[in-house]
Amino acid sequence: MDRLETVDQVRAWGGSGPDLGFVPTMGALHAGHLALVEQAHSDSTRIGSGRVIVSIFVNPLQFGPNEDLERYPRDLEGDLRQLAEAKVDAVFFPKLDEIYPDGFATTVQVDGPLTERLEAASRPGHFAGVTTVVAKLFQIVQPARSYFGMKDAQQLLVIAKMVRDLAIPTALVPVPTVREPDGLAMSSRNAYLTPQARAAAAAIPRALDSAAELYEGGERDAGRLRQSVETALGNEPLLRPQYVSCARLDTLEEWDKVEGAALLSLAVEAGQTRLIDNRWLGLAGDRPELN
Amino acid sequence: MDRLETVDQVRAWGGSGPDLGFVPTMGALHAGHLALVEQAHSDSTRIGSGRVIVSIFVNPLQFGPNEDLERYPRDLEGDLRQLAEAKVDAVFFPKLDEIYPDGFATTVQVDGPLTERLEAASRPGHFAGVTTVVAKLFQIVQPARSYFGMKDAQQLLVIAKMVRDLAIPTALVPVPTVREPDGLAMSSRNAYLTPQARAAAAAIPRALDSAAELYEGGERDAGRLRQSVETALGNEPLLRPQYVSCARLDTLEEWDKVEGAALLSLAVEAGQTRLIDNRWLGLAGDRPELN
Repeated sequence: MDRLETVDQVRAWGGSGPDLGFVPTMGALHAGHLALVEQAHSDSTRIGSGRVIVSIFVNPLQFGPNEDLERYPRDLEGDLRQLAEAKVDAVFFPKLDEIYPDGFATTVQVDGPLTERLEAASRPGHFAGVTTVVAKLFQIVQPARSYFGMKDAQQLLVIAKMVRDLAIPTALVPVPTVREPDGLAMSSRNAYLTPQARAAAAAIPRALDSAAELYEGGERDAGRLRQSVETALGNEPLLRPQYVSCARLDTLEEWDKVEGAALLSLAVEAGQTRLIDNRWLGLAGDRPELN
Repeated sequence: MDRLETVDQVRAWGGSGPDLGFVPTMGALHAGHLALVEQAHSDSTRIGSGRVIVSIFVNPLQFGPNEDLERYPRDLEGDLRQLAEAKVDAVFFPKLDEIYPDGFATTVQVDGPLTERLEAASRPGHFAGVTTVVAKLFQIVQPARSYFGMKDAQQLLVIAKMVRDLAIPTALVPVPTVREPDGLAMSSRNAYLTPQARAAAAAIPRALDSAAELYEGGERDAGRLRQSVETALGNEPLLRPQYVSCARLDTLEEWDKVEGAALLSLAVEAGQTRLIDNRWLGLAGDRPELN
């Protein structure tokens, strides 16, 4: 459905109410997305109607000029089939000019360290693109709860900051990363990997696992945790790390000695494909508290 | 009431519903604000409950470092008395740290000519401050309709652009400027005027009236309309015009020959006080269509 149909649908339900769950995606859905949908459906059913809206929109604003906007995988038909099977009530797949009409000129952005380091360093403008489109999707859908994957950790923290700062009335629900049998985090971009790069990529979750074990064993020197990841990745010639970070959750600034919850994260080029992954360390449960 | 009380109040009403009217102000209320409240009350009563929320918040983000934030007039007690008489259901007067908690880092801004000329030229950052706070107020209050005065014309056009671009679900209602008997536009800043500057300021609406009469008489040369205002103001030595503009409504770029609706606007220093005023030319009725 388009933007006006989505608004009408939400209105026909008598407003978003306390139970409407929302899963924003860029399509090319995989098991990671379906875990978000499943969690949304389960929460919404527990509270009320079980209503869930999924959006599918490949957002050009969050792609840099040299990034993979054109070749980003698209499969609307397959996506809709999977969402029908997952009993999703409404799928919002706006056309480009419904989100960015001629003369669109508004930006929603989070400033400061959260949007300066890690992904932001190699993707200028990326997070302003994300927060602008997500803010708009929230206005259209008016969800009570919104679901984001913990794989895109910095995105999740930036969106949580925007939601708190602007008092956007939606509760953010982080959902743990879904992985392939060998541990590789599910990602639409995994489709780009050559067989050789795909095999090498299995070293990424292994490297994070070893560092997480060091942490569980009491290691709090952030430099040693980062070093452990870098060393493990160094054994794979097909992997070129862009960064390895062990950072505070509130600002994503590097820990020296880890003194609270931490995000251990990395970006790696595997052949021509850029992959990210992480471990959240020191959480009370399996997810961070966001708002 | 504070932010959480406001949210609770809106929730207790069963969500904002189709009738909730919202009048955001910086306080120091005068007859211009009360016209907004009256229009909001009348619309809301016609549609349903008659519910109206007024916010009072002097927003530091929209004041430049050399502007009048510190001395901006404040009279919460008087404001609350007037709003009680106007039968307003809820007044939202947040503390500073409810709107801008420690570490607040989010900006909502409209780029392009709308925020580069006229008021923006002498008040850098002003409109980003306005759109950021108004976006946040909209999230907290969730109003069906929001009321803004036509005196702050550029502010109205910038907010309308933000609301359209982000699909914020509120209808903007522009309300015509309320004037003193001699024509001076009501403004909280009129309180700053010395008696001499106050007397001289009456030339402002007269200058705009003469130019508007030229327009009604068929004059479409924007230069001549501007010149007519400048000449009339030139007769008052206490007035120092900062700009006189005759601009398109969509971008606020200057018309050469007026070929559609136009905003004839000006900023003038009267003694130490900066005043703005305008005439909207070529509208179908007495207000612009905004969204």
